[in-house]
Amino acid sequence: MNNRYLTVGMCQPRLVYAPQDNIDKALSLIDEAAGQGAEVAVLPEMFSTPYEPSAIRSAVPLTPCALQRLSDKARRHGIYVVAGSLPYAAKGPKPFNRACVFDPEGRIIHTHDKLHLFDCEPPGGPSVRESMTAMPGSELGVFKTPWGTAAVLVCYDIRFTPLIQILVDRGVSLLFVPAQFSTATGKAHWEMLLRVRALEIQGVVVGVQPAQNPALAYVPFGHSITAGPWGEVLGDAGTEETVSVVRVDMDECARIRSVFPLIEHRRTDLYRTVWQDGD
Amino acid sequence: MNNRYLTVGMCQPRLVYAPQDNIDKALSLIDEAAGQGAEVAVLPEMFSTPYEPSAIRSAVPLTPCALQRLSDKARRHGIYVVAGSLPYAAKGPKPFNRACVFDPEGRIIHTHDKLHLFDCEPPGGPSVRESMTAMPGSELGVFKTPWGTAAVLVCYDIRFTPLIQILVDRGVSLLFVPAQFSTATGKAHWEMLLRVRALEIQGVVVGVQPAQNPALAYVPFGHSITAGPWGEVLGDAGTEETVSVVRVDMDECARIRSVFPLIEHRRTDLYRTVWQDGD
Repeated sequence: MNNRYLTVGMCQPRLVYAPQDNIDKALSLIDEAAGQGAEVAVLPEMFSTPYEPSAIRSAVPLTPCALQRLSDKARRHGIYVVAGSLPYAAKGPKPFNRACVFDPEGRIIHTHDKLHLFDCEPPGGPSVRESMTAMPGSELGVFKTPWGTAAVLVCYDIRFTPLIQILVDRGVSLLFVPAQFSTATGKAHWEMLLRVRALEIQGVVVGVQPAQNPALAYVPFGHSITAGPWGEVLGDAGTEETVSVVRVDMDECARIRSVFPLIEHRRTDLYRTVWQDGD
Repeated sequence: MNNRYLTVGMCQPRLVYAPQDNIDKALSLIDEAAGQGAEVAVLPEMFSTPYEPSAIRSAVPLTPCALQRLSDKARRHGIYVVAGSLPYAAKGPKPFNRACVFDPEGRIIHTHDKLHLFDCEPPGGPSVRESMTAMPGSELGVFKTPWGTAAVLVCYDIRFTPLIQILVDRGVSLLFVPAQFSTATGKAHWEMLLRVRALEIQGVVVGVQPAQNPALAYVPFGHSITAGPWGEVLGDAGTEETVSVVRVDMDECARIRSVFPLIEHRRTDLYRTVWQDGD
């Protein structure tokens, strides 16, 4: 039996070019979220750095020290922490763009390496070639929470709907999306993507962004949003640095699935989405 | 080489309880679309009837006569007609919800039987049990046009993203969606679904609805919309009976695919969507 109500804290920091300041800020926003009653605190993608190649290269990666500090916050407050993402140096020449999830005991219970790297020149800019600074992941997992089965997709991943179908097949009703959409892609797509994905999983999607900061070359859109199973916006953090705390009734997911059985109505006799093991 | 510019006429009739009047109205809106320069005229789902069980049962089906009249319009004007949908009696006890596409010679070049029947009790109502009045299709095809490869999905089908992936694999850049979203589901989802699907196929989506008519038990939402490959609204017909003509630059699809290569970025090494032959 899952807990009915989830209180989620969308931590929306104003990133700067000083990596250590960004880490300190993220940790203080976790404190603030916990102080406001959040049971899950969520940080954005690459929360130690503006989303710019030179900045990413000098960003604070997922060091043992950074991990320890995040773990301590989760344990001290007794909450889950979805630690957006940080560069994670593995065996390859470039790091993964990795999200870690900590449970209330401070243990890492899940990681997700961004599967789709953003090599794009979107209309309105700025152009990004993420493959120059990161390696793509090759796995997709889920994890259990007191509010249902959950998963993490990072930013660009959210545009690829086969992932959504696979997560639905794995029972996900709670999806976290740390991201750094720019003001251009954010304005054009961010809200509707989150809302439609919530509709498609018939669950809750928590998309978390950095605050807008016009002093950066790559200006994040802000507008961390929680969307419900009817595609409705349950909370929008606006553009400034803030912690936006949203109380979600997870029973709505079951209710919507019952009256609007989109998942059940899939024609699995005609089509299906399959996951192949990565190397 | 495809034609660059497509002029599409979204025919948005105000449906009534007199089936023959609805057919006459649809035919006259095709005239109006052609008169305004449309090269493709598109009609909504079940354009001979309000979307209500008793009305659907007495609707004008896709008779040889109705087909002939639609064919004549296409041929006389020298345009394509996407004849939204009508009930089509096949061998089973219930008809298909069938869309037919006529070429400028008046020949049927494509049909699509709605794959997903709307058996739902959406919040805000009204409840519908389409399986009581229709049989689901079991095929998904595409067809060639001077503006690129095209396909038709009917209404509820648009919510099922594996179809979108399969259409992308088959080269579709132009998708027609005859529909009858209600005012409730329309307000909640219609625009964002069309826009996100246009983003996902990196193409053009033409969604056509009946006009609002408060005298009906099931009130359609109106708002026929054409969405472009960046998820932008290129035309919105509003709520009244009208023909909304939109000129679309199909070269935008290639441009967006080039600078924002979402389709190319799919991780086909990790996942794929497969179509299995229906019975």
